[in-house]
Amino acid sequence: MAASPQRYRRACDYLAAAMIYLRDNELLREPLEVRHLKPRLLGHWGTCPGITYLYAGLNRLRDPRTLLVTGPGHGAPAIHANLWLEGTHERFDPALSRDGAGLRELVRRFSWPGGFPSHLSPEVPGVVHEGGELGYALATAFGAVLDKPDLRAVCLVGDGEAETGPTAGSWHGHKFLDPARDGTVLPVLHLNGYRIAAPTVFGCMTDHELLDYFRGCGWSPKVVDATTAADPDELLAQTLRLAWDTPLAKPMIVMRTQKGWGAPAHDAAGAPLAGTFRAHQVPLANVHDDPAELRLLERWLRSYEPDDLFDQDGNPAPDLLEDLPGLGMLPEANGGALRRDLPLPDLAPFAAEGPASPTGTAGGWLAQLMRDTEDERDFRVVCPDELESNKLGAVLEATDRAFTPHVPGYSEHVSPGGRVMEVLSEHLCQGWLQGYLLTGRHGLFPCYEAFASIVDSMVNQHAKFLKVSAEVPWREPVASLNYLLSSEGWRQEHNGYSHQGPGFINNVLTKKASVARVYLPPDANSLLVVLEHCLASTGRINVVVAGKNEAPCWMDLDTARAHCAAGAGTWEWAGTGGPPQVVLGCAGGIPTVETLAAAHLLREHAPDLRVQVVNVVDLLALAPADRHPHGMAAADFDRLFPPEVPVVMGFHGYPSAVHEVLHGRADTQRFHVHGYHEEGTTTTPYDLLVDNGMSRHDLAADAVRRAGGPPGVVDRLLGERDRIRALAHRDGEDPAEITGWTWSA
Amino acid sequence: MAASPQRYRRACDYLAAAMIYLRDNELLREPLEVRHLKPRLLGHWGTCPGITYLYAGLNRLRDPRTLLVTGPGHGAPAIHANLWLEGTHERFDPALSRDGAGLRELVRRFSWPGGFPSHLSPEVPGVVHEGGELGYALATAFGAVLDKPDLRAVCLVGDGEAETGPTAGSWHGHKFLDPARDGTVLPVLHLNGYRIAAPTVFGCMTDHELLDYFRGCGWSPKVVDATTAADPDELLAQTLRLAWDTPLAKPMIVMRTQKGWGAPAHDAAGAPLAGTFRAHQVPLANVHDDPAELRLLERWLRSYEPDDLFDQDGNPAPDLLEDLPGLGMLPEANGGALRRDLPLPDLAPFAAEGPASPTGTAGGWLAQLMRDTEDERDFRVVCPDELESNKLGAVLEATDRAFTPHVPGYSEHVSPGGRVMEVLSEHLCQGWLQGYLLTGRHGLFPCYEAFASIVDSMVNQHAKFLKVSAEVPWREPVASLNYLLSSEGWRQEHNGYSHQGPGFINNVLTKKASVARVYLPPDANSLLVVLEHCLASTGRINVVVAGKNEAPCWMDLDTARAHCAAGAGTWEWAGTGGPPQVVLGCAGGIPTVETLAAAHLLREHAPDLRVQVVNVVDLLALAPADRHPHGMAAADFDRLFPPEVPVVMGFHGYPSAVHEVLHGRADTQRFHVHGYHEEGTTTTPYDLLVDNGMSRHDLAADAVRRAGGPPGVVDRLLGERDRIRALAHRDGEDPAEITGWTWSA
Repeated sequence: MAASPQRYRRACDYLAAAMIYLRDNELLREPLEVRHLKPRLLGHWGTCPGITYLYAGLNRLRDPRTLLVTGPGHGAPAIHANLWLEGTHERFDPALSRDGAGLRELVRRFSWPGGFPSHLSPEVPGVVHEGGELGYALATAFGAVLDKPDLRAVCLVGDGEAETGPTAGSWHGHKFLDPARDGTVLPVLHLNGYRIAAPTVFGCMTDHELLDYFRGCGWSPKVVDATTAADPDELLAQTLRLAWDTPLAKPMIVMRTQKGWGAPAHDAAGAPLAGTFRAHQVPLANVHDDPAELRLLERWLRSYEPDDLFDQDGNPAPDLLEDLPGLGMLPEANGGALRRDLPLPDLAPFAAEGPASPTGTAGGWLAQLMRDTEDERDFRVVCPDELESNKLGAVLEATDRAFTPHVPGYSEHVSPGGRVMEVLSEHLCQGWLQGYLLTGRHGLFPCYEAFASIVDSMVNQHAKFLKVSAEVPWREPVASLNYLLSSEGWRQEHNGYSHQGPGFINNVLTKKASVARVYLPPDANSLLVVLEHCLASTGRINVVVAGKNEAPCWMDLDTARAHCAAGAGTWEWAGTGGPPQVVLGCAGGIPTVETLAAAHLLREHAPDLRVQVVNVVDLLALAPADRHPHGMAAADFDRLFPPEVPVVMGFHGYPSAVHEVLHGRADTQRFHVHGYHEEGTTTTPYDLLVDNGMSRHDLAADAVRRAGGPPGVVDRLLGERDRIRALAHRDGEDPAEITGWTWSA
Repeated sequence: MAASPQRYRRACDYLAAAMIYLRDNELLREPLEVRHLKPRLLGHWGTCPGITYLYAGLNRLRDPRTLLVTGPGHGAPAIHANLWLEGTHERFDPALSRDGAGLRELVRRFSWPGGFPSHLSPEVPGVVHEGGELGYALATAFGAVLDKPDLRAVCLVGDGEAETGPTAGSWHGHKFLDPARDGTVLPVLHLNGYRIAAPTVFGCMTDHELLDYFRGCGWSPKVVDATTAADPDELLAQTLRLAWDTPLAKPMIVMRTQKGWGAPAHDAAGAPLAGTFRAHQVPLANVHDDPAELRLLERWLRSYEPDDLFDQDGNPAPDLLEDLPGLGMLPEANGGALRRDLPLPDLAPFAAEGPASPTGTAGGWLAQLMRDTEDERDFRVVCPDELESNKLGAVLEATDRAFTPHVPGYSEHVSPGGRVMEVLSEHLCQGWLQGYLLTGRHGLFPCYEAFASIVDSMVNQHAKFLKVSAEVPWREPVASLNYLLSSEGWRQEHNGYSHQGPGFINNVLTKKASVARVYLPPDANSLLVVLEHCLASTGRINVVVAGKNEAPCWMDLDTARAHCAAGAGTWEWAGTGGPPQVVLGCAGGIPTVETLAAAHLLREHAPDLRVQVVNVVDLLALAPADRHPHGMAAADFDRLFPPEVPVVMGFHGYPSAVHEVLHGRADTQRFHVHGYHEEGTTTTPYDLLVDNGMSRHDLAADAVRRAGGPPGVVDRLLGERDRIRALAHRDGEDPAEITGWTWSA
């Protein structure tokens, strides 16, 4: 017969405490001495008993289609204890066998160099969410159950985490789930009343307020108060059973437990521990130096009666192992193993043959991809209410925006089964997509460029998850996280300064070279090629920046393929030929237009100047090959940017991004990068370019200057610039000579 | 007698529409023709009538101590209209006089090159919040009323913005306000049902759900439904009056209006406009090309009866100007003019004389500052529950954590009047502080380094606000936004990889050079000096990175002052003297320790190698002087880093941050920057350094290598490194030979 929940929890709590404190004598077969202690006590006891309380309750449901998303990832010891008893650990690593040797290994490995980190992490089976940075568990859980109608995600949200904005915004997530096609999420708000040093906001709310709050969000909340229940396990089991039986009622649970439940009431100095913030991390921190505290620890650990739980060889009592569904073994938690390659449509029918909106062109192809995945339902688009304004509206001809509540007024393309997830929250979009990708599916995140920085820190954490996952032997690669940044700053001259910010690139460049990719396709066809590449890739964070306004299409599809494969290349047709006196480099849609216009201006104003035009699609191709896997060989780099020749570069983002990527290349001082300098307001596109020194006239003038050309030409070009800018200020729009410019060879 | 609210709104709505559409014929004295239209229609009509509805209601309260924080900043035309009629515009710019000339100027200036941006911005009086990036209005409003007991902030939150995480988390803000010492915030949730293209989440909630939700948050919500009320203005006025009279009840208002209220029901093609998402931006977008649509626009504009509102010279009817309290003139909205310099305590009594925790040392000084500002109450600390864990707990001896609800259990240092604002939300901390600073006060934001990136995008927007504010003649400078990033990644070996991330520096480096500052004080005394400097500064974003663990104190106070003033300097005592063969550079607390230890190792292992040790406090001192105002003159730079001499640099953050700052200096290839390479887990501090090539042995070995020293020495140093690391892995802690190392000259 299976152990009672109390007894099961006693085993897990003992193991969790042992992981935090012990390096030896892990079953307390001897009196506890300092030499048995880990030299550094790294862990968080406070949330562990509550995690196991829930885990034990979930075990009783015996539903192996349960995904536990643990918000308080610092409570890792509790999860480890459960994974070990249920045999998940053993399955992924035989050294963690369910016997004395495995127990010893588990206890020692926790928070030890080369062992398990102190928080949940990709090394731990069953984990799709790290929890080190709080706020994203709930959104991740919602993403995980999309298009998995038989899956139940239980999301434990700590009352600290509940204070974060992203979590507060996530409670509405069920409104985007389709009861017919998606799974369900059962949120469990874990109220233990304290953060690391102070009471929590939710811990100070009355039950009445809590119930109101969650009812307002559309849930049917129940309070499970383990601090007052006669039989806490039975109460939780009944509540969970009810939730399992009535998913359409949107059940959620407010679960109260004592902080650090089971820890001593006071430390050796008399300070209160259990039930206070002092139990958050290591409740008895002076065990190495204070014999009285060491005795307290021993008494506490022995209170779990380890001899009653483990036999003399350290094998757990058989009843502890019975009837455990093995939640950590859920296949979705190693989603890469379930992932199929997307059936990417042929690009040819969608290729542009003349001026085209890059994102508009991509929208047609993405719509086809949406249709081609309608049966499998393993591709989604998340977007903060910007799909149409980013000219990707064609996708809405293939599917709707997902939303289940009754819409009281007029709407278009909104229905429960839609596979576009629009919400005015970059955080939710990102969290949903992370959950979706980590459980083996694919997606795209189109976003206003400036507002992608809202999720900088989430990207940081996802990049870490990907980096570590690649080092875990049993983790299969998941689909890349793909951003399509449109409504680029250069064409946010209408929304103004707040909407201009290309810094997302800079943040992604700080990520591991094995993970980070930045693409700046200059036209519609190269965008198609880049998207095809990104959606077929795994384990990366791909940032694709592309315009939405109609723009010249510089390359046919085949040319675009070759160009994108190389990462960067000389556009012979745009230069003068001959050994260049100056290279005009460009990266990004608008800078490419301006650079080509500059080349054109130079033909007229400085016809003897030998110019080479180089377009860069893959920003990291500029990096030295020893710093990034996409870095071009030095010889190739020198062909594009011949040594000693000055380079005037029009770059889409902050020039610093190019500067840092170039570091390590020879003679970088000859690169003069024009880009966004944080000058902007509501004005005309040309005026915005001029304010940042990025107009065609600025680029052409700088090229003449750097090549040592006549100052008179520079003055003429800048005079031309000022004349045009004055027209724009007078008329409120750019003159046709600028907007109507088209390339002529 | 003052105009009726309906008539007043008619005037404002007309003006707002005129701003969006017209460049001429702004009073429709002639039939409307295409030439009267702005060539580009840049604005958002949808939210304008609702904003004016609220503004008109607030005017009737006649309380000049009202701060309106407008979340939907894209509804700028409405605010402009009100500011013009109430005379605020005229007061700040006589060209915007309340007559025909001023009206013409106002209408033309909106969304025009060189004129007013399309969104609210620092150029607009009364504005302390830009609103271009949604999510932060409510937190800003709470920050604005702290320590202003007579101030009422009314915060309009759009139902789009309400979906964002930061807004969702902000609703609990009133729990941190002290009724005795702080003002109040009246949130008004503006439900018009739609975002740019789809229904909003809150717009699809029932009144019952809305009331539950806000009650759960502790508010007393009232629904004001302008779409069904017999007299919407009277209903709003009564509700506002009740709110004004019962602030302790925590009133808030759910305000329903029609989207684009007043716009035509359909466009010329028959598509629905008013009351749908199609009214979000410019409701009749084809007026230039479609005569039928132009006629619709004219009919719509004439429906406001401009001839009835403005006389033949364009002067507004006198009744429109009566009894307007002039909300835009609130002094707090130009907070710099109210700001006093902080009475910064003398540093000397707090200076460290031996090994000390930098933040612990700073904590004592900050506690004194807290005491010295107790009467004026113009300094606050915001922190995501990390004050004590960042060793700044001394501040809590001088004041408490602010929190008003009943705390059901044990707590310490928590009370309503406290001036430390702790909440587990970096977004709230940032929003609160922005509101506090922009209304003329001072503050400090201590934060775990890795999690500062959570507010990257808020920093972006604040940097923009500061940049533009400095260009507005009447805006007085506000106190700088000061971050103290502690719990640095190098000592997050216990929390592990998720807590390691120095990228906040990289993001701040993308900001305008006039705004961004990055300081890396290497010890306790230099931290004191840097904090003193930052808290006395205005208009900047100061990022200060400092350790919390006890560390050597390299400089006495006077030395620290001189060193920080220079930004960087040679530490003669640490080098060998003589023309160096290699420079050991360092920036940041841990890298400085490692670099000095490396210098020490070199004395033993390569006694003939001439080494110069340079410490950098002010990262931007490394930038070329033409790229940043703190950039050192080339001659000074060359003294620190003599040309041709290789530099091995230990840097606190990502090496890319140094690379980009150095761009433009000569021969940057000789800089070999060691820093964080995204390698990390839970391990020992030394092991973490080794994983990133930043240990003393790595630095020393690289110095020997770069200086062309014997490979045998390199091997010996790296062998030593591997031996020590093996000990750390065996014992679970670094050996004493590393942790106990102290400098000996």
